[in-house]
Amino acid sequence: MKIVFITTGGTIDKIYFDAKSGYEVGDPQVIDILSEANVIFEYDVHNLFRKDSLDLTDDDRLAIREEVKNEDCDRIIVTHGTDTMVETARALLGCAGKTIVLTGSLAPARFKISDAGLNLGMAIAAVQTLPNGVYITMNGTVFEASNVRKNREANRFERL
Amino acid sequence: MKIVFITTGGTIDKIYFDAKSGYEVGDPQVIDILSEANVIFEYDVHNLFRKDSLDLTDDDRLAIREEVKNEDCDRIIVTHGTDTMVETARALLGCAGKTIVLTGSLAPARFKISDAGLNLGMAIAAVQTLPNGVYITMNGTVFEASNVRKNREANRFERL
Amino acid sequence: MKIVFITTGGTIDKIYFDAKSGYEVGDPQVIDILSEANVIFEYDVHNLFRKDSLDLTDDDRLAIREEVKNEDCDRIIVTHGTDTMVETARALLGCAGKTIVLTGSLAPARFKISDAGLNLGMAIAAVQTLPNGVYITMNGTVFEASNVRKNREANRFERL
Amino acid sequence: MKIVFITTGGTIDKIYFDAKSGYEVGDPQVIDILSEANVIFEYDVHNLFRKDSLDLTDDDRLAIREEVKNEDCDRIIVTHGTDTMVETARALLGCAGKTIVLTGSLAPARFKISDAGLNLGMAIAAVQTLPNGVYITMNGTVFEASNVRKNREANRFERL
Repeated sequence: MKIVFITTGGTIDKIYFDAKSGYEVGDPQVIDILSEANVIFEYDVHNLFRKDSLDLTDDDRLAIREEVKNEDCDRIIVTHGTDTMVETARALLGCAGKTIVLTGSLAPARFKISDAGLNLGMAIAAVQTLPNGVYITMNGTVFEASNVRKNREANRFERL
Repeated sequence: MKIVFITTGGTIDKIYFDAKSGYEVGDPQVIDILSEANVIFEYDVHNLFRKDSLDLTDDDRLAIREEVKNEDCDRIIVTHGTDTMVETARALLGCAGKTIVLTGSLAPARFKISDAGLNLGMAIAAVQTLPNGVYITMNGTVFEASNVRKNREANRFERL
Repeated sequence: MKIVFITTGGTIDKIYFDAKSGYEVGDPQVIDILSEANVIFEYDVHNLFRKDSLDLTDDDRLAIREEVKNEDCDRIIVTHGTDTMVETARALLGCAGKTIVLTGSLAPARFKISDAGLNLGMAIAAVQTLPNGVYITMNGTVFEASNVRKNREANRFERL
Repeated sequence: MKIVFITTGGTIDKIYFDAKSGYEVGDPQVIDILSEANVIFEYDVHNLFRKDSLDLTDDDRLAIREEVKNEDCDRIIVTHGTDTMVETARALLGCAGKTIVLTGSLAPARFKISDAGLNLGMAIAAVQTLPNGVYITMNGTVFEASNVRKNREANRFERL
């Protein structure tokens, strides 16, 4: 089994820069997390963007879609900021022959306490057990791309 | 959706006692991990044992099987030590009408670097996507109970 | 021995809010860190401000000075943002009869990797070993308030 | 300013080996902790032993004393297991011309929650502020080697 990871930035990869009193998107954390979990499957990581998902444009979403379509591997996980994860998931609908799972985190992976590991674990299980289609794994739940929204007030994902 | 977690001990729950210069099984970590990941599903946690899995007896496995069978919920995750996780998984075969996933970790959940969150995330996705049966989620892989072993030399799970 | 901690905010206490895609100053971390280190001395914690130190005004510095002067305890640690820590240290010069140590961190205490614990440990040792005066403990070094600056380009403290 | 660190093992360096269901002393953690804290002083690290301190012999203590005496640097920090830290501290009394601080931790440095960073920070401040002599920094307190014991029941250090 092989899985391809496409990273686009988002909270999961955020680092803190004291010199600027703020955060920026840093190196993709997925590589460290996979290494720390001693995964035995084959994988590639493509670093496409390092953006807060509010800054992703329609052209960026088209680029993600092209990357997914051109990928030989049929199991693809996209790490992504949470604010527009649902929009990108829908922009990936209709990519035939592939199981695509988007995930990310509400707290940076670099925090002692973060949902990054659990969310990524969910994506890894979902991508190897689900039929072709587009899914989101957040808040302990496997959502279908067509039936999910981010509730910003409650800061969580939920079904429509 | 509801998930029942049955905890039996193992490395995932290990704590370090300096006074004894050693590790012992502590409080189940699954509650903290679920809370930190802001999961939105309903769940119960039953703490059945606090044992290194090498110390689990046949009677203990029967007790786990009884607990699983008597449970109304049809999605059950068992956290377990890794050394005899495969044996317990097989002792749960044939519990009709339930999807059962066993998981644990190779490094204690209390470590900065641990596979606990990712493994538990995999179990949570697997238990909601897979048909009835018994599974193990370790090393980034969803295994069927009948087709997995722990390779102790390499310290990882693999297919037979 | 008793130590009084005055918290004013800064990176050490920063938390990440996904809903706002940014960091804000959260609860003082000093209480958790002291608890986790099983300290045996008596202490009080006064939470004075929750500010990025660039937002501290002259009136705020006067309020910190008043708090320090009115304090019965002669060993005082001030946790503070790094950008204007030197300015506040100098504003505390001349508080007779007290050993005052300012510290903070370049990475939030909530990160897996942070200088918060080490810096706070330095402050705790310095406040119980040094004569009356005002000091800063950052970057592994005990600085006198009159002989330190923050080098923003290098993101570290150094002697003048 | 230069500090020499001599590592001898102990809980601070303990790692967990799932394959053996137990812990062993791993690589010295002091190098990682110093790097993560961006310390600006010059330092060397000498890795002398990797032992649980209950396994240190009289010959081992003599070897530590020789290492300390032969060291050109006059500021020396010894990381050490907690159970016999007091014995080693006393075996170092009388090394003229040097400030020697012993420290370690009650929870492994690899844990999310550990006293290792704070204790090491205390040692770093103490070794640069105290007169020649032998000290222990544990539980938020700077102890003199002649006036400290480990209370094993309470799992903390205290004055005699």
